Amino acid sequence: MPGGYITRIDSMSKAEKLSDRYEFAGAGIGGNKIYDLYLRMDDDVLAKNPDIVLIYVGVNDVWHKSSFGTGTDPDKFEKFYQAVINKIKAKGSKIILVTPAAIGEKTDFSNVQDGDLNKYCNIVRDIAKKNSLPVVDLRKGLLEYNLQHNPDNKDKGILTSDGVHLNPAGNQFVADAMWKAIKELK
Amino acid sequence: MPGGYITRIDSMSKAEKLSDRYEFAGAGIGGNKIYDLYLRMDDDVLAKNPDIVLIYVGVNDVWHKSSFGTGTDPDKFEKFYQAVINKIKAKGSKIILVTPAAIGEKTDFSNVQDGDLNKYCNIVRDIAKKNSLPVVDLRKGLLEYNLQHNPDNKDKGILTSDGVHLNPAGNQFVADAMWKAIKELK
Amino acid sequence: MPGGYITRIDSMSKAEKLSDRYEFAGAGIGGNKIYDLYLRMDDDVLAKNPDIVLIYVGVNDVWHKSSFGTGTDPDKFEKFYQAVINKIKAKGSKIILVTPAAIGEKTDFSNVQDGDLNKYCNIVRDIAKKNSLPVVDLRKGLLEYNLQHNPDNKDKGILTSDGVHLNPAGNQFVADAMWKAIKELK
Amino acid sequence: MPGGYITRIDSMSKAEKLSDRYEFAGAGIGGNKIYDLYLRMDDDVLAKNPDIVLIYVGVNDVWHKSSFGTGTDPDKFEKFYQAVINKIKAKGSKIILVTPAAIGEKTDFSNVQDGDLNKYCNIVRDIAKKNSLPVVDLRKGLLEYNLQHNPDNKDKGILTSDGVHLNPAGNQFVADAMWKAIKELK
Repeated sequence: MPGGYITRIDSMSKAEKLSDRYEFAGAGIGGNKIYDLYLRMDDDVLAKNPDIVLIYVGVNDVWHKSSFGTGTDPDKFEKFYQAVINKIKAKGSKIILVTPAAIGEKTDFSNVQDGDLNKYCNIVRDIAKKNSLPVVDLRKGLLEYNLQHNPDNKDKGILTSDGVHLNPAGNQFVADAMWKAIKELK
Repeated sequence: MPGGYITRIDSMSKAEKLSDRYEFAGAGIGGNKIYDLYLRMDDDVLAKNPDIVLIYVGVNDVWHKSSFGTGTDPDKFEKFYQAVINKIKAKGSKIILVTPAAIGEKTDFSNVQDGDLNKYCNIVRDIAKKNSLPVVDLRKGLLEYNLQHNPDNKDKGILTSDGVHLNPAGNQFVADAMWKAIKELK
Repeated sequence: MPGGYITRIDSMSKAEKLSDRYEFAGAGIGGNKIYDLYLRMDDDVLAKNPDIVLIYVGVNDVWHKSSFGTGTDPDKFEKFYQAVINKIKAKGSKIILVTPAAIGEKTDFSNVQDGDLNKYCNIVRDIAKKNSLPVVDLRKGLLEYNLQHNPDNKDKGILTSDGVHLNPAGNQFVADAMWKAIKELK
Repeated sequence: MPGGYITRIDSMSKAEKLSDRYEFAGAGIGGNKIYDLYLRMDDDVLAKNPDIVLIYVGVNDVWHKSSFGTGTDPDKFEKFYQAVINKIKAKGSKIILVTPAAIGEKTDFSNVQDGDLNKYCNIVRDIAKKNSLPVVDLRKGLLEYNLQHNPDNKDKGILTSDGVHLNPAGNQFVADAMWKAIKELK
């Protein structure tokens, strides 16, 4: 997607003369939850023999609870997340975890699903520790960014267009964080 | 489980001198939804090299929407259901589908989730047609049974203890229906 | 609203030369539940000294459960419904109850919230009996109409535009049913 | 209720030789939301000709969203809250608002409904400002208490038995905060 964070990472890698070392491909599908990734992992990701896989999931697992009644139980979120990691490990690819960033940008933890999203971010961080994997903590980063740039405590419009989907600044923010983690990977 | 429908099917097979032709094993886990079956299918079912697999799932995919916000979207229910079938087909086992029976036993379609459960049963019946597979239509059977035996329109206590979980009569009812389908299988 | 059922009832009363005996006024607000009616009843309805009040409510009390998590508990639906009736009775107006018609027009009870809506219709019918009040049973009528005119089991487009909101045919259907009940009222 | 915060406030008023100036009566009912208070206000509260009314509500308006799908929309929470205040004002009683304290005691805002509860507390605080009424901010106080006394980030057991209902320490905590506000009232 033009303007999306993958395109932006690609541009940065070229600007830094690193494009011979990296090639980027997205495999995300809107509305997917952790078990959807598990179902698609072989065909859509591992078939491409990736060197590195970033797992960026969790917003829909929380968000869909209130909007459709079809979110993911926390214990199953953890179980499928680990199953996805196991599949990638078995393939030999390196892995970077990414915490789900936001459902609303208010900084006083009064976005309706802040509590639940924080809970699932804690699950991602715990999985990272257990598996000794690096984490791009977008949740933490987005909050810190908003504490500086969102003085009116708005629920959207800083890094997202609607509280969930990234605007141009948000795509650059995510691109910066992911690109840093990719370059730091041993 | 003593008194459970699998034990009862086993007893009937012995009473009918068919126990040399059949061996029965349960693999169900309370609270499981269709994607949980997909995750466990290889280890818990296909590793046993079954001749026949009965797929009996769907109540939690609907029920957990209201109780936990973690039901299954209908399109994903269909997708994972087909993926489960594909896994079993690839193994070469025969397959029988079973519709989810009830969340409440009232006969005037005033059980809170009747509409949604009917919808998911329609999905199961459609999948059966597409895959030319037999269906044990417990949903239809339980309603017919209740129309005869539940004149006071109670929401539980006829074939279930609580509207969902089978009582002894319910276990025998399910055992009868499944055993008939198993014997009819070509 | 032009084309709405109140305008249509008014037109019928004029065509039948009964316009000197009746004057019609709507007081409905989109998204209202039974307790909203209770809060507004004095100012928006009883202040007009109505001879007859039709209470037509219930869809949002059920519908908003899944879409926003803010439906109405059945016992509180009943309690506030009775409180609304008591307020109108105290004023001396006559009362006609109306069952909530539909959330989806499928005729095999596979609209997701059919079960819950049927349950709330049963509550309305029970309240009518207890209070010896007439009921315009739109729920029953709409289903019967669809059984005749919706052979393809569509979820909308027969009497509603979207499964909930009335289309022109639906507005006429409701107008006919209400007008009949008004004329029959002693 | 023995051990409840009302009993404790009564005891404190007696210990401080103020029992000739105060008499305390509870009117709370488990499971009530703001519109339930509105319905019961005349009979259960104002009929007693109170000098001071403390409005302590909001947990169920949020909590019941996920457990039953029957929480209260934020705009209606505000509207009914103001209607309750107007009723009490018309009677001439003084009013103290109380923020809903907790659904879970974790201190890192990872209790599932923290975000939504914070949102409703903001509504209560805004209503207090608009009406120039004092607030006992239990939400803020309980968090501060937990930041000191809940170093292991437990979700219950500090001031509540289950994350919602007060244990003995919690009842004393609430009693202290309310008693202070009552004595400060002009």
